[in-house]
Amino acid sequence: MPRTAIVGAGPCGLALLHAFEQARLDGIDVGEVVCFEKQSDWGGLWNYTWRTGLDAHGDPVHGSMYRYLWSNGPKECLEFADYTFDEHFGTPIPSFPPREVLYDYIVGRAKKSGVRESIRFDTAVRGVTFDAESATFAVTTESLENRCLSTDTFDHVVVASGHFSTPHMPEYPGFQSFPGRILHSHDFRDAAEFAGKDLLILGSSYSAEDIALQTFKYGAKSVTIAYRHAPMGFGWPEGITEVPALTHLDGRTAVFADGTSRDIDAVILCTGYQHHFPFIDPYLRLTTGNNLYPDGLYKGVVWAANPKLLYLGMQDQYYTFNMFDPQAFYARDVVLGRTALPDADQMAADIAAWRSKLDAVSGVMEQIDFQTDYVRDLLTLTDYASFDLDLVRQHFVTWEHDKDESITGYRNRSFSSPCTGTVGPAPHTPWWEEMDDSLSRFLKP
Amino acid sequence: MPRTAIVGAGPCGLALLHAFEQARLDGIDVGEVVCFEKQSDWGGLWNYTWRTGLDAHGDPVHGSMYRYLWSNGPKECLEFADYTFDEHFGTPIPSFPPREVLYDYIVGRAKKSGVRESIRFDTAVRGVTFDAESATFAVTTESLENRCLSTDTFDHVVVASGHFSTPHMPEYPGFQSFPGRILHSHDFRDAAEFAGKDLLILGSSYSAEDIALQTFKYGAKSVTIAYRHAPMGFGWPEGITEVPALTHLDGRTAVFADGTSRDIDAVILCTGYQHHFPFIDPYLRLTTGNNLYPDGLYKGVVWAANPKLLYLGMQDQYYTFNMFDPQAFYARDVVLGRTALPDADQMAADIAAWRSKLDAVSGVMEQIDFQTDYVRDLLTLTDYASFDLDLVRQHFVTWEHDKDESITGYRNRSFSSPCTGTVGPAPHTPWWEEMDDSLSRFLKP
Repeated sequence: MPRTAIVGAGPCGLALLHAFEQARLDGIDVGEVVCFEKQSDWGGLWNYTWRTGLDAHGDPVHGSMYRYLWSNGPKECLEFADYTFDEHFGTPIPSFPPREVLYDYIVGRAKKSGVRESIRFDTAVRGVTFDAESATFAVTTESLENRCLSTDTFDHVVVASGHFSTPHMPEYPGFQSFPGRILHSHDFRDAAEFAGKDLLILGSSYSAEDIALQTFKYGAKSVTIAYRHAPMGFGWPEGITEVPALTHLDGRTAVFADGTSRDIDAVILCTGYQHHFPFIDPYLRLTTGNNLYPDGLYKGVVWAANPKLLYLGMQDQYYTFNMFDPQAFYARDVVLGRTALPDADQMAADIAAWRSKLDAVSGVMEQIDFQTDYVRDLLTLTDYASFDLDLVRQHFVTWEHDKDESITGYRNRSFSSPCTGTVGPAPHTPWWEEMDDSLSRFLKP
Repeated sequence: MPRTAIVGAGPCGLALLHAFEQARLDGIDVGEVVCFEKQSDWGGLWNYTWRTGLDAHGDPVHGSMYRYLWSNGPKECLEFADYTFDEHFGTPIPSFPPREVLYDYIVGRAKKSGVRESIRFDTAVRGVTFDAESATFAVTTESLENRCLSTDTFDHVVVASGHFSTPHMPEYPGFQSFPGRILHSHDFRDAAEFAGKDLLILGSSYSAEDIALQTFKYGAKSVTIAYRHAPMGFGWPEGITEVPALTHLDGRTAVFADGTSRDIDAVILCTGYQHHFPFIDPYLRLTTGNNLYPDGLYKGVVWAANPKLLYLGMQDQYYTFNMFDPQAFYARDVVLGRTALPDADQMAADIAAWRSKLDAVSGVMEQIDFQTDYVRDLLTLTDYASFDLDLVRQHFVTWEHDKDESITGYRNRSFSSPCTGTVGPAPHTPWWEEMDDSLSRFLKP
C-alpha cells in the first residue's frame, strides 16, 4: 500500500487531501495519506493568529495574515470548480470577501470531504531524506505537544507548506539606530496599531499596495511608499504617496534616492518572502525566487530530479485555489501512478520550454495569460471539474483595469462565477468605508 | 588531539574560549576548539539587532536586547575578575552602564584573548547527536551564507546558546481579537514606539519591571502591570500601576482578576523564556524551567547523563559574567581532563544535595546567598582569578534595598569593585532623566 506524506494543511494540502478523497470515492485504492500540520488548525495562512515571530512552541509563526484583509482579487477568480460559493453560502455574495469568509469557504470543502482525520495537527516536519536503495523517504516529525520525534517511511512526499511565511528582510543603513518600529509585512497584524503615525512602506507589490491602503484606511497620518524600480502608480488617496527607493535612515528621517526626505514613525518592509524549506535535505530543496515557473518542477509540481517528491503552489500567483486544485489532482494522479511521467530528458525539455516562454513574458497582462495557459495545461492532464478559464482570465484583465481606475473602489465591483454564472451582488457598504471585516457583517443582506 | 565544539559566542561561549586561551598560554595542549555562532558578530544577546521574529536567513532572531537597556544591577556584581572595568576603560565609570558600554567591555576581553579566529560566524548548529561506540558527537552545522550543511566530529560539546531567546507566550482569551499590538519582551526594541499609549504589561520579573520603567520614561501615557501571584510592589512613579492577573481582553478593554478593567492600546508579555535546544537530540537536551539549579547538571555545568556534554549559563541569574567565567574555567578543565569527575552516583548525589538546598530557599536574599554559595563552590574547583565574592553578595543585598527605596533612583548609586576596590563615580545625569544610552554619552566626564 503506497504511503504519501503531505507537508501542510493549507489550501494546497487540503486540495490534495480532497483530491485523494475524490479518488477514493471512485473506488480507487489511494493507500495511506498523512498530512502533517504544525499549526493547531487547518487553513494555512488563512488561519489567522495574533502571534508574531515565534509560536507557542518556539517555532517560526507560519501565518502572515493580518486583520482587515479583504481579498484583493475577485473571489470568482479563485473559486473551487467542484465546490462553488453558491454551494457553500447558499446565496450569492459580493466578489471581494474578507479573510473570515474565504477561510470559511476553504474549510467548508475540507469538512465536506471529511479529510480532517488524515491531518496530524501540532506536528512539525523536521526532516525529509530520501533513501535511494529503498526508494522511500524518511520523514521525521515532532509532536509539539509532547516534543516526541518520530520517523516514518513514505513512498511520496508532497510539500505544501507555502512560500509566504519566511520574510525577505533587507537591511538599510540607519535601521540599527532608527527610533521606532521596523517590521516585515509577515509580522503585520492590525492596521489600527499605526493610527496617527507617519508610515514608510518599502516595496511595490501586493503587500505594499494593500498594507498602504489598510493602514491609511484605519487612521495612519501618512503613508509613504518607496519603490526600487517603478512606482505602482495607482490613484492613491491624498495622504499616500510613492517615492523613489530608500537610501538610508538618519534618526527618524528617511532619505530617498531623489534626495527628498521625510520624518517617519515606523517602517513596514513589504519586501517579499523566501522559498524556505529547512526541513528538507538540501539536495531535495526547491531553490527559487518568486516567479511564475520555478525551475526544476515538471508541470510546476513534480520535482524532476526525484519525481517521488512533489511541490504544490510554489509559483507566483494570480491564480490561487483554482490553480492549486488542478495541481493537487495532477499530483495525486502522479502519486497513484494513474499519470505516467515522461523520462527525465522530456521533463527537462518541458520545463525548459515553459521557462523559455516565461522569459518572453512582459507586463501584467502577459503574466496573466502565461498563468492561464499553465492552468489550462494542468486541466487537460486531470479530471478536475471544468470551469470557464477564459472568463477567469477576462476577469483578471478587468480587475487590473478596475484597480487602475480606482484603487480604493475596485473591491466594490461585481464579477460572474466561471462555475455557476452567478454574479456577485454589490457589497452593502463600499470597501473604503467598511471597517468591520467579520463574516457576519459581510454576509448581512 | 581532542576536539571541542562550543555552541554560541555570547558571554558564556566567549568565557570558555577565553578559558581555553588562558590554558594555552600556560603551555597546555587544548586541542581543537571551534565555536559556532549563528549571528554575524559576537556578544550573544548583547549584540543588539533591530530585527525581530526571524533573521535575514529565516531563523529565529537570537537577541532579546532592546534600546535604552541600562544594566539593572551594579556592574561591580558582574565584573570579570581577570579583566576589570579599570583595565578596559582606564578610568572609573559609574556603576550602572547602558548596553553599549557592557558590550564594549565583553568584547574587549574577547579581543584581548584573541579568540575571534576560533569562531565560525553565520553558522547555525542544526544537529548534535552522540555516537556511543566512538564516544563522539556528530555536530551538523549550516553555513547561513551558502546554505551548506556539514557534519564534524567532536569529543565534547559545550552548549552556550543561552536561555533568553525563545519566548514563553501564553494566550489569554481575547488576544485573537484585540485591536492592537501584542508582543513578547523578546520582540521589544524601542520604548519610544509606545509613547502616548496605554500599555498593559504581563509579568512580575525583571523584564516587566524594566520595560514598565523604560516605556514610561520614554513617554507611554500609562503602564499597567498585571501580576499572577504577587505585585513587585516598588514605589512606581505615578502612571505605573500594578493590578491582579489579567483574566481576558474584551476588545481593547483588559479585565483583571479583581474585577477592575482598563482600556489599553498594546500588550507586552514579559512572561519569560523557554530553555529551548531544538538542535540537540532530545535525549541530550536539558529540560528545565528557569531556576537556580537546573536538574541534571553536575556543578551546574556537566550533563551528568553524558559528561562529554556541558552546558553554560543555564541557571536563573543574579550572578552573570562572574558566574559564567568560573563555569567556563571548570568546563574547560573537565574537557581537558584536568579535573576528574566523580562517578555517576556521586554526581547525582551532589546535584540532589544542591537541589534539596534550593528547595529550602525562600525569598530574594536567600536566593542571592544560594547562588553566592554556588559560585563559591565553582571558584574552589578552578584557577579562575579570585575576587571578593562576599562583597558582591553584599552589593546584591544593598542593590535590592536600593530598589525598594527608589525604583527610578537606584541606578544612580555607586558600588565598589570586588576586584580592584575602585568605586564607581556617580553618573553625570540621573538615570531617570538620561535619555541617551550611547557609550559616548555615558563615558563623558
